[in-house]
Amino acid sequence: MRIHPRNNDEALFDLLSRSARHLVSACDVLEQIINADREERASLRETLHAEEHAADNSHHDFQRLINATFVTPLDREDLHLLGSTMDDCMDLVDEAGDCIVLYHVGVLPQACHELVDILKQCAELTSQAMPRLKSLKDMESYWVKINELENHGDQIYRAGIGRLFEEEMDPVSLIKRKEIIERMEAAIDAFESLANTVESIAVRES
Amino acid sequence: MRIHPRNNDEALFDLLSRSARHLVSACDVLEQIINADREERASLRETLHAEEHAADNSHHDFQRLINATFVTPLDREDLHLLGSTMDDCMDLVDEAGDCIVLYHVGVLPQACHELVDILKQCAELTSQAMPRLKSLKDMESYWVKINELENHGDQIYRAGIGRLFEEEMDPVSLIKRKEIIERMEAAIDAFESLANTVESIAVRES
Amino acid sequence: MRIHPRNNDEALFDLLSRSARHLVSACDVLEQIINADREERASLRETLHAEEHAADNSHHDFQRLINATFVTPLDREDLHLLGSTMDDCMDLVDEAGDCIVLYHVGVLPQACHELVDILKQCAELTSQAMPRLKSLKDMESYWVKINELENHGDQIYRAGIGRLFEEEMDPVSLIKRKEIIERMEAAIDAFESLANTVESIAVRES
Repeated sequence: MRIHPRNNDEALFDLLSRSARHLVSACDVLEQIINADREERASLRETLHAEEHAADNSHHDFQRLINATFVTPLDREDLHLLGSTMDDCMDLVDEAGDCIVLYHVGVLPQACHELVDILKQCAELTSQAMPRLKSLKDMESYWVKINELENHGDQIYRAGIGRLFEEEMDPVSLIKRKEIIERMEAAIDAFESLANTVESIAVRES
Repeated sequence: MRIHPRNNDEALFDLLSRSARHLVSACDVLEQIINADREERASLRETLHAEEHAADNSHHDFQRLINATFVTPLDREDLHLLGSTMDDCMDLVDEAGDCIVLYHVGVLPQACHELVDILKQCAELTSQAMPRLKSLKDMESYWVKINELENHGDQIYRAGIGRLFEEEMDPVSLIKRKEIIERMEAAIDAFESLANTVESIAVRES
Repeated sequence: MRIHPRNNDEALFDLLSRSARHLVSACDVLEQIINADREERASLRETLHAEEHAADNSHHDFQRLINATFVTPLDREDLHLLGSTMDDCMDLVDEAGDCIVLYHVGVLPQACHELVDILKQCAELTSQAMPRLKSLKDMESYWVKINELENHGDQIYRAGIGRLFEEEMDPVSLIKRKEIIERMEAAIDAFESLANTVESIAVRES
């Protein structure tokens, strides 16, 4: 493969932006899964998997391109970390959706609706921030807002788990719903890790 | 910011020691939470959160100082790893305390009392070891003892989980107590990871 | 210690191969634990622990040798990552076995038999691939097959968890069996991480 440094720089940032857009789509599908009835959920899960699969391919292209690029626009390790942390976000969103379908739960706790709203905002902010990585300018509002969203998500998570233990008398239903809420909270945490990674790169490079 | 290499070196090691002292305080508060009744626990949780928050600030100062330091006293990556592993210890101690409060459990299993005792010893040993990082001298007893404590903690964990499945007939109580014991064990594991990190740095640099 | 670069290279690859052979043995013992009755399981767990302990020693030798080697045959960080990822595989196989013994379960779900079969194949492929690391040749079939096995394992895992929630009426039995299946799946995931690590090294170095 011939190496065109400038083109590769563009292509690397484009692939990060593309991964972020897959996250926006995936969080939208997760919301649809949460609002759907049991029958629709199975087919929506396929849509979510397709999104995850596309993001996976984009991540592999990204890794190959890092390896094929002699001088990378950011530290090689930083790029790898950005890619793999974004990959973690997608995996956790995908697993949350899977879990809902696999457990054949009916109506989901209110916390799930509130958490998917947080996830959608995280994905949207991430997708808006990625194109600014190139200049590393105006990034601070991104990680500040993600941290606020994560704090809010944490309160929803706690209240949701607390209510579950008070109201859900059937232990098997409790196990299922607890795990779904936990997986959604883990996905929000992954978005926070991504924002922290961006912060530490931006602080170091600026 | 003007860079004073020598002062920064001192300041970096001071921040690691400060984080370790926060861990000592946090494990003390966790012990108080375990011994308290349900009413007191909520306010003790605030104390624990304040400790975690202070440690978080100290961790951010530490990261900024690494980035602002041209020649660091240890490998930059090693310093980052030390900081983030200590941060993990704090997060897990904090989560264990949270879990106890959130689940509104009454009397806790004997294993919790034994595990918090292990955690307190881990934190104390860590706090004593951190000031010696500067010279990397006399560190071996630290990681050897932490590994012994982790092994002992593992035995307590196993026996505790085993007893729980034998004695606890209510599945919801079992879920709660199992998770509290698991989180305490995860916190001990984090102290072991920290000791392993210190060991690998000390072995490489000496 | 006197340093003999060439010998150290050989010794490093030998230690990786040795760790992989311990994984083969450990997966065999895990299969025996799954097929055994409760009485036999306790003593088989000791065999599994001995295997894990031997692998641990081999891992420490490996780390010390990396640190004692001036010019390593692969990137120092890559070698550390290979060693610690293989260590993760062993820990997760060991924990799966522990869990079965600790929870005093009787007959295990069909999924456990199928998952241990996947694990055995993963370990065998890993053990065959490690000696080829030296030349980084003919590695692709290794990570392709491991990824196929992981996909297959994932289907078994999902079907197994789904069936468990349909058929297991006792919540405590459900908790136990669910966690055993999850730990086996986590062990398969660790083999996939190892294969991904090998892939990214091979792609970069070739």
